[in-house]
Amino acid sequence: MPINIVKIGGNVIDNEVKLEKFLVSFAQLKGNKVLVHGGGKIATQMAKNLGIETQMVQGRRITDAQMRDVVIMVYGGLVNKRIVASLQSMDCNAIGLSGADACVITAKKREVKEIDYGFVGDIDKVNDQFISSLLSQNIFPVFAPLTYDRKHGILNTNADTQASAIAEALAKSKGVNLIYCFEKKGVLTDINNEDSVIPILKRKLYEKYKLDGVIYEGMIPKIDNAFRALQNGVKKVIICEADDLQNAVVYGLSGTQIIL
Amino acid sequence: MPINIVKIGGNVIDNEVKLEKFLVSFAQLKGNKVLVHGGGKIATQMAKNLGIETQMVQGRRITDAQMRDVVIMVYGGLVNKRIVASLQSMDCNAIGLSGADACVITAKKREVKEIDYGFVGDIDKVNDQFISSLLSQNIFPVFAPLTYDRKHGILNTNADTQASAIAEALAKSKGVNLIYCFEKKGVLTDINNEDSVIPILKRKLYEKYKLDGVIYEGMIPKIDNAFRALQNGVKKVIICEADDLQNAVVYGLSGTQIIL
Repeated sequence: MPINIVKIGGNVIDNEVKLEKFLVSFAQLKGNKVLVHGGGKIATQMAKNLGIETQMVQGRRITDAQMRDVVIMVYGGLVNKRIVASLQSMDCNAIGLSGADACVITAKKREVKEIDYGFVGDIDKVNDQFISSLLSQNIFPVFAPLTYDRKHGILNTNADTQASAIAEALAKSKGVNLIYCFEKKGVLTDINNEDSVIPILKRKLYEKYKLDGVIYEGMIPKIDNAFRALQNGVKKVIICEADDLQNAVVYGLSGTQIIL
Repeated sequence: MPINIVKIGGNVIDNEVKLEKFLVSFAQLKGNKVLVHGGGKIATQMAKNLGIETQMVQGRRITDAQMRDVVIMVYGGLVNKRIVASLQSMDCNAIGLSGADACVITAKKREVKEIDYGFVGDIDKVNDQFISSLLSQNIFPVFAPLTYDRKHGILNTNADTQASAIAEALAKSKGVNLIYCFEKKGVLTDINNEDSVIPILKRKLYEKYKLDGVIYEGMIPKIDNAFRALQNGVKKVIICEADDLQNAVVYGLSGTQIIL
């Protein structure tokens, strides 16, 4: 049975009821699995409460030293441990990790070009052996979107990219599925119509939809990640609704499957 | 070689320079080791910044739901990951854990009697097998003072007690030392004189010093923990200065050794 690498997005994390429904669905997923969670708006709210201003450039958070402390607290502490405790209560033996823990995901601080993103990391290496060792003990890693750079310490990292990097690293020796979960039923041709899910998205169709402006903005890097993962040995990539994991992954009855 | 279970106190954690010196000393300690860190005043400061009032009763923090979020963020996030990243930069392969992670330390929420401590846990069970599995991979656990209760989630827990519980659990199958590190040179007969370290403290002398008021307040539960640990199979218990681990543990040249 392949290992399922599941990414859960910020919008679901921000909603307690939706998050709980997703976690039930994740806990029920049989076999080996890994969860990668995004950050959500809690970090922005926490920063605001602490009088720290959030700066976003092209949808990405600028992570200065103060903001890094906030994301370490919120992503690595509050969100990560809440998810772990909730999964444990569902008899899913989860362990929370940042990239620094057991040096499991190392990264390089992004070079300053036109924009100084601050303490933001681009992934260098995933220690798949350590992840495999946990899975062989039926312990399921839950990753916060934080990586580690020996020189700069902990770095804020995009959770979609982190999920695909983990999937690709494990795919070197094992069968791996990569599943992006979010609040929509899949990749839609009409963002306002949940019945417009594209069941199968091949490269050619994707290029057409991009040209036509049907697929745009945040969905593009996600799907680019998906194709790269497939090229690097991941068996199956699915984009689906958060509480519909069984149907999408096990039965192929919902969500969008990306195919090379 | 025995496993060294080292506890580092809040006063050292609050001081960046002292913390760094301690971590160098911990990283240099040869053989298997586990670190348990306290909380320090950062949680109190963070709560204040967030407009949450800290209530202390007999030196213990009352942990209501809001304060629990703060301690999860600060102890489990900020402090824990900072320590892990710092140790990694010293080539010490650390992994940060709360009790919920891999369900490694379970606890029961303290019963409400005269005082309602809120989300505070008394330790039930330590999963020594999981800790041993990490140590066998040369991965060194760094524990935040947080435990896990299936019914109530993550609980705030005294770090001294957590360190002795871990030491006692591992002592069932392995040789274990327990070392309490803090800002003083050891147990002193005169709190204002760092030259008054008691090199060896046996039960009889301890009882006398307690009666005479020489040993008092916070030192009493620490030493009581120490004696209980020795009774439960821990080989050696030492109370010493944070950056003097080598001298105290390896050479026996400093600190206070507690002997039954």
